Amino acid sequence: MDTVHLIVSGRYLVDVVEGSFSENISVAIAGDTIVEIASGLDKKYPEAEHLNTPHGLIMPGLINTHTHAAMSCFRGLADDLPLMEWLQEHIFPVEAKLTKDMVYQSTLLSICEMIKSGTTTFNDMYLFAGDVARATAESGMRAWLGEVLYDFPSPNYGELANGFVYTNELIAAYADDPLISITVNPHAVYTCSPGLLCQLGDQSAQHNTLYHIHLAETRDEVNTCKERYGTTPVQHLYNLGLLNNRVVAAHCVMVDDDDQDLLAENEVNVAHCAESNMKLASGTAPVVNMSKKGIVIGIGTDGSASNNDVDMFAEMNSVAKIHKVAHMDPTVMDAASTLYAATLGGAKLLGADKYIGSIEVGKKADLLVLDMDQPHLTPVYNPLSHVVYAARGSDVVHSIINGRVVMNNRDLTFLDERQIIADMTRLGCTVRDLSRLAAR
Amino acid sequence: MDTVHLIVSGRYLVDVVEGSFSENISVAIAGDTIVEIASGLDKKYPEAEHLNTPHGLIMPGLINTHTHAAMSCFRGLADDLPLMEWLQEHIFPVEAKLTKDMVYQSTLLSICEMIKSGTTTFNDMYLFAGDVARATAESGMRAWLGEVLYDFPSPNYGELANGFVYTNELIAAYADDPLISITVNPHAVYTCSPGLLCQLGDQSAQHNTLYHIHLAETRDEVNTCKERYGTTPVQHLYNLGLLNNRVVAAHCVMVDDDDQDLLAENEVNVAHCAESNMKLASGTAPVVNMSKKGIVIGIGTDGSASNNDVDMFAEMNSVAKIHKVAHMDPTVMDAASTLYAATLGGAKLLGADKYIGSIEVGKKADLLVLDMDQPHLTPVYNPLSHVVYAARGSDVVHSIINGRVVMNNRDLTFLDERQIIADMTRLGCTVRDLSRLAAR
Repeated sequence: MDTVHLIVSGRYLVDVVEGSFSENISVAIAGDTIVEIASGLDKKYPEAEHLNTPHGLIMPGLINTHTHAAMSCFRGLADDLPLMEWLQEHIFPVEAKLTKDMVYQSTLLSICEMIKSGTTTFNDMYLFAGDVARATAESGMRAWLGEVLYDFPSPNYGELANGFVYTNELIAAYADDPLISITVNPHAVYTCSPGLLCQLGDQSAQHNTLYHIHLAETRDEVNTCKERYGTTPVQHLYNLGLLNNRVVAAHCVMVDDDDQDLLAENEVNVAHCAESNMKLASGTAPVVNMSKKGIVIGIGTDGSASNNDVDMFAEMNSVAKIHKVAHMDPTVMDAASTLYAATLGGAKLLGADKYIGSIEVGKKADLLVLDMDQPHLTPVYNPLSHVVYAARGSDVVHSIINGRVVMNNRDLTFLDERQIIADMTRLGCTVRDLSRLAAR
Repeated sequence: MDTVHLIVSGRYLVDVVEGSFSENISVAIAGDTIVEIASGLDKKYPEAEHLNTPHGLIMPGLINTHTHAAMSCFRGLADDLPLMEWLQEHIFPVEAKLTKDMVYQSTLLSICEMIKSGTTTFNDMYLFAGDVARATAESGMRAWLGEVLYDFPSPNYGELANGFVYTNELIAAYADDPLISITVNPHAVYTCSPGLLCQLGDQSAQHNTLYHIHLAETRDEVNTCKERYGTTPVQHLYNLGLLNNRVVAAHCVMVDDDDQDLLAENEVNVAHCAESNMKLASGTAPVVNMSKKGIVIGIGTDGSASNNDVDMFAEMNSVAKIHKVAHMDPTVMDAASTLYAATLGGAKLLGADKYIGSIEVGKKADLLVLDMDQPHLTPVYNPLSHVVYAARGSDVVHSIINGRVVMNNRDLTFLDERQIIADMTRLGCTVRDLSRLAAR
């Protein structure tokens, strides 16, 4: 067994399984693993580094279950527009000109932002996934990620056939990586033919990877699917034999009761992106009902083009509030349920709840410390309430992923934040030029 | 004329009137007033202090148009409960035991939080308003505030008759205060008899003060009003002759088209509290429609018992998003409209748009500087978009109110933040004990 190298101490320790907390308890980490949770550990292991935050709250790292990290380069490029105008006149034309370096830089920026706002794991779908992986590997983050595939040629791999090869190569390259898992990513039922959806289904089954897809995001998507295939997007995937527990279905806004039953019966997992669905006016996913049916719900920020950030604390706050007003019931999506979805729910969705998502002995050490000694977090009656309803991403002071301190007192360990911001500012000028060219 | 004593410089300067921005322009302040807006002002006034933030964004201070600052002592005490259980079993029993010192301390805490998240003006309704004013005066904040009145005895002034005397005394005491304005505060139509509402209407007319009231917040309120008076809360006030441009109506969630017309015709101003209405499952106020009818809309956080913070950046983010999904239209409540409501809209609501709410020569110097040099605010295409959709309260580095720097590089000038947090932590123990006693 590895030696205990790090003790993390604070005032509160959050238990997301019980929805409770304990006080004045430390966490001991050896290698990548949590090995002990008790008081007085700093004295028991005097050789270990001691990360002590007297007013700190220790909680599991947040799991962002649906994002496009590299879309940070589009943050605020175009807002408040009809969805199709936004996509077709602003996002798609620039995406068509993307390069691997743009994706790498933009992913690095989002990773900076994610670490600094408490995310320790993200599930990414985008172009140039190899470069998303490269950025991720440098950062110390944990991620599931994959190359998005659709029927038309891609600015990354060109013709579709190459996309399968590209994904297979990534799967092979990261097979033994402790932090990076490769996924299969059909974009959506309206951009992928049944043949493509099924081929990717086979690839997912063969390699036992997640099958990450946008599903039933908008009313338009449902209408298009009904026109083409005479059925809803969920039923369409079911008819193709593609619903199973490897599927991560992002959004699921427009799912009727039958759709929800299909998702539940086939153990499909749902990545709920409340803020993106609000901003793009897609609707409110029925996650309260889906939860009742036993569907695992994770929380995702979606990309920064449609949110406009990747801050999971802001997302939790919105998730906890939007369903209350949607149901006209202040008791739904309480703080504990919301925090569960953002941590252990996300881990379950990724098929990784045996080793991440909560602070338990034997699990990987993915955890955060929040500084509770601040006006907006005072007084403290129930720290879980503050995590969901009052804390901000900027309250995270330390972040540990796989046993390594990736942020110490808000300084990133493995990334050069100043350089990344400077590079991204330059890249923003390129994106603006591409966007103006496209608008002509 | 006063000498220019302060130059504020940054990269961006936001114009909330035009919904636009300019670059590399400074603001010169003499006494309490903005006297010049141009480039190179630091060289023109070399004797003045120069607050320079190379990547900074200069914007008007935010105006929180409806809050109960002292309710910070209830932050997270009880969440996720049915409204009446929350009020009657948790909030009211403790409120009945409140003391002036508890209100003073809790207000100080909220003011810390407000300054640190960009609010420069707040409109407060609560008990022990004299102590709210005392805390406000120490802080350098600008506020409209008043004692809440209802039919039953108050823990502050006892019998109702004393409430009028109390308010009159406050009006006299703060008549010449440059920063504090006293208002008249009937709690709501379901807690105030028609007689009380009218008496307070007279008081408001006599002293030309705002008439700040909760109005049509919930369906229950509308139903109660219909049962008692056979009409809606808005129509009820109209029938009593109480709708006019001094009225600040908080919430207005449950207002039908006729109600909205009455509000518009009588120039009533609406304080929109989106997050509180979401968390308490009250509904979504039709502010897009009300705006179209010409009603002035301000934004408010409500108290920390029901939000659970007083962060206007978080509130703007929610306001911009909730109406898009409510209308299934991504073009409504765009960034510029939302920011306008949070600044100049709020100033209009308070009848103070001639001197606050925007950065213009001749206006009072109430302004903020945000540090844009951060991952979640990079790149910058449209700074207004970032202010609404990506910035957090913690991004505010400097705040200036009435020409005085009240926060410099996140350090409060006039308040002892450490002491206030420590005092509030102790007070939290008292509140918890009171709450437990009440629960028996």
